[in-house]
Amino acid sequence: MSAWVLPDHIADVLPSEARHIEEIRRDLLDMARCYGYELVMPPMLEHLESLLSGTGEALDLQTFKLVDQLSGRTMGLRADSTPQAARIDAHLLNRQGVTRLCYCGPVLHTRPAVPHATREPLQFGAEIYGHSGLEADLEILTLALDALKTAQVGALTVDMADARIVAALLAPSGLDAAQQVMVHAALAAKDSSELALLVKSCPTAIAQGLLALVDLYGGAQVLEHARKVLPPLPAIHEALDHLKWLASHLEGVRVSFDLADLRGYAYYTGVRFSVYAAGASDALARGGRYDEVGSVFGRKRPAVGFSLDVKVLVGAAAVRPLRAAIRAPWGEAAALRTAIAQLRQQGETVVCVLPGHESEVDEFQCDRELVQAAGQWVVTAI
Amino acid sequence: MSAWVLPDHIADVLPSEARHIEEIRRDLLDMARCYGYELVMPPMLEHLESLLSGTGEALDLQTFKLVDQLSGRTMGLRADSTPQAARIDAHLLNRQGVTRLCYCGPVLHTRPAVPHATREPLQFGAEIYGHSGLEADLEILTLALDALKTAQVGALTVDMADARIVAALLAPSGLDAAQQVMVHAALAAKDSSELALLVKSCPTAIAQGLLALVDLYGGAQVLEHARKVLPPLPAIHEALDHLKWLASHLEGVRVSFDLADLRGYAYYTGVRFSVYAAGASDALARGGRYDEVGSVFGRKRPAVGFSLDVKVLVGAAAVRPLRAAIRAPWGEAAALRTAIAQLRQQGETVVCVLPGHESEVDEFQCDRELVQAAGQWVVTAI
Repeated sequence: MSAWVLPDHIADVLPSEARHIEEIRRDLLDMARCYGYELVMPPMLEHLESLLSGTGEALDLQTFKLVDQLSGRTMGLRADSTPQAARIDAHLLNRQGVTRLCYCGPVLHTRPAVPHATREPLQFGAEIYGHSGLEADLEILTLALDALKTAQVGALTVDMADARIVAALLAPSGLDAAQQVMVHAALAAKDSSELALLVKSCPTAIAQGLLALVDLYGGAQVLEHARKVLPPLPAIHEALDHLKWLASHLEGVRVSFDLADLRGYAYYTGVRFSVYAAGASDALARGGRYDEVGSVFGRKRPAVGFSLDVKVLVGAAAVRPLRAAIRAPWGEAAALRTAIAQLRQQGETVVCVLPGHESEVDEFQCDRELVQAAGQWVVTAI
Repeated sequence: MSAWVLPDHIADVLPSEARHIEEIRRDLLDMARCYGYELVMPPMLEHLESLLSGTGEALDLQTFKLVDQLSGRTMGLRADSTPQAARIDAHLLNRQGVTRLCYCGPVLHTRPAVPHATREPLQFGAEIYGHSGLEADLEILTLALDALKTAQVGALTVDMADARIVAALLAPSGLDAAQQVMVHAALAAKDSSELALLVKSCPTAIAQGLLALVDLYGGAQVLEHARKVLPPLPAIHEALDHLKWLASHLEGVRVSFDLADLRGYAYYTGVRFSVYAAGASDALARGGRYDEVGSVFGRKRPAVGFSLDVKVLVGAAAVRPLRAAIRAPWGEAAALRTAIAQLRQQGETVVCVLPGHESEVDEFQCDRELVQAAGQWVVTAI
């Protein structure tokens, strides 16, 4: 096999796409900063138990493991930065009040998350800790939408769910942990016949509620319908109230609900959302409330956050024009070198044509060149 | 052991330092773009032979290995992005002319490169392919110096060497590969007595030349002295001429030479340089010519480049002031939300104080607040 072949689902990012990723990366971080989110940079590698504690089996299977030759312990390559941010909030910063954190860096997956996905997403995310009220959920949702808008994607749809609904139905269901996992899978697949078999032993109201979830997706009427067909448990009514309040505060986006949606990592404990753009097949951003994540680090704090893969986002984003460059000859004359340095200080891209390469095509799109006229170096159109 | 303890030589980057790293990262990438260097993003993971081909044992020992469960093959986590950039030039871009590439991303090391180093440097680098003339060496050196200057480090010293000098002495030495490795080690340690034992069997002129190298460090006089004490081999004279030419084209920096310097990766084939800043103990940037790196990918092209660890650079860089933020109350009123959105669009950081958190200390330094006065939301100094 040739030395230049890359592993499956691993790719180089070449100049035109890399430039676009870098521009959107900056816009995302600037947007988070404008909202008061402080940038952190958690490491690529951690002890495995730090990365996986309380996060469920799906993340475990996605995490590459290797041995630390300094300690002999097993380390993992991060597959998701959310637990890392929770660790930083809980232990390192250890603040009492509201903490807002954001991050942007590669994560690695042992297997692609969906059939054509990369195994090396560039994960951008933002998290708010220390506030259990819905204002935090709304702020994260608004930030996620603003972040996607900076990338100039198609019209946005927010699809909402709430982890408390399924949990409230499963708690009195009498099903054991293994059976609950199967219920989750059947709900995710919207497989009513499988679900009917699984819930046969449950109390009637619970079984009916779980079966009803499969059809509880669509527009605003879903919430009203859910109030009628789901059992009148306080946690369910609270979840429906919260979804309604959040939806009523979103402007300029379509809102839909899918109360059976349980995709993604296991750590959500409240409202969850996925954001879709017209023309993009998969969700561009996912987030929600996960108040339990920090508990393994000794401090359980309310937490809401979202994350996205910048590489996926760039695929859905409008192409940005390349700033044109200036071609300059190579030379030792001080006046030429000063002219080039000054143009670069002004932010211009100046490509020096090295001796013998005068006939080559510029890789940067050069629309001007630096030429000598009447003893002066001047920029002229090509 | 607690779940929040990180492996040795692995650390979180907390907000104040992360902000500084991100700012310098952008300045470095912008500087490279101004010089016409195209950004690429090679992957964190590759097949081991792609990462290590032709790069020597030091890089192999620094590279974490893991098994790809999709293919069963051994992959490596990149410990250096230079061979990746060479692969992209040789195979993916496959251009005939001059290609300029830059990159910035984490690399991982099994062991710290120096006793207090991180095992996760943030490597920024730039490489120019396709030009064998010294103009390329000079451009890379100038870019490296300009990159360091944007970070506002202390006065710079460029320490230069040339891989051809030791190679020219070893070629007719009669020493086998294992002995040559020991000569390298003795030269790196400037261990004259060990070196004297190793070169005892060499032709007299060669042995004297290798022993003379140990003392060939210092200012410009080193080059003239080297011409006298080293054997009159054409490769050595060419190397000395090249060093002299490059040094004569550098302005505003101190230049020194260390002709026995062989530190770093094994792929250098010509002029090499390290850049030091006053007040920083280790080199901030290293680079040079390595015309052989692409050959394993089927295309041997002239190449010069440099790289640096942004984390180390930030440690030596002047602290930058934090842009102050605006504190705003939380509220549902459209006028308030519009005022906040407008300030954020202007690039301001607006931190919303969530209900119940009014008495908390702001993590962002807020020097203004958004208050209602005569029915209008206005920004006032705190």
